[in-house]
Amino acid sequence: MTTTKRRSERQQWNPDLGVLASRLSTETQTGVFASLRVAGHGDLEMRHGAVLPYLDEDGIRATELARLSGRHKQVVGRLVDELEALGYVERRADPGDRRAKLVIPTPQGLEALRVADRAIADAEARHAERIGRRAYAEFREAMRAMLAPRPGMS
Amino acid sequence: MTTTKRRSERQQWNPDLGVLASRLSTETQTGVFASLRVAGHGDLEMRHGAVLPYLDEDGIRATELARLSGRHKQVVGRLVDELEALGYVERRADPGDRRAKLVIPTPQGLEALRVADRAIADAEARHAERIGRRAYAEFREAMRAMLAPRPGMS
Repeated sequence: MTTTKRRSERQQWNPDLGVLASRLSTETQTGVFASLRVAGHGDLEMRHGAVLPYLDEDGIRATELARLSGRHKQVVGRLVDELEALGYVERRADPGDRRAKLVIPTPQGLEALRVADRAIADAEARHAERIGRRAYAEFREAMRAMLAPRPGMS
Repeated sequence: MTTTKRRSERQQWNPDLGVLASRLSTETQTGVFASLRVAGHGDLEMRHGAVLPYLDEDGIRATELARLSGRHKQVVGRLVDELEALGYVERRADPGDRRAKLVIPTPQGLEALRVADRAIADAEARHAERIGRRAYAEFREAMRAMLAPRPGMS
């Protein structure tokens, strides 16, 4: 039986998965964007975080960015427009298929990706130091297993 | 050394903490709001999820909602305004302090909180079934430990 009484207290001593996952995600993103700001990339916004993890040095198609990020193609198109206007990516014809375009990070974009990747690696190292390397590795593995696609589900 | 080459592939076979946490949070919230929609509360929006976990049957002050959710007081005030307009909460004078107001769920609000709490409990049960009860309990405990306030930090 779930009671709605004193839910706020329960969320403090025993936060539910929704609260925990939201905090972890927010804390991680906040750290990344703080590092980006310090490194001079303060014009990047949280919403750009949807596609930043999937940008490739060699370029990636917008349709692939949409698939990987789980966002609608229109949303990704708008984010790429913004990143292009800010000078982080450019669109170039795909040498393998001239009808297709690749989203390619500029040198400024590559710099920002390195800063973001380092910020996440640092956060993971801090977590591992705090709860133990083994506990952290198991935590990560559990999260991956929970999020892996299920057979027969999209 | 971090390389930015083939980042998109790396994020598929070994997603970083930012990607994992964001997916887990999104998946959990999406499940909650799908259940709310099915139960006739489709007018609740994802942004309301910031305060829903902390609403108490007996009422809670907006300042306390802001502290618990980690959101600015103005943001919480706006969310409470919206929830009030939608009929999920009402503001009433605090019997213990007539100058203060309490945010109190209406019967419709209590119903929605029960649906949301059940959706999260169901999601946790599914995760535990998938990766094992013990692995899931350890996962949750690791996440709590990682997010616990550190001495000397705000």
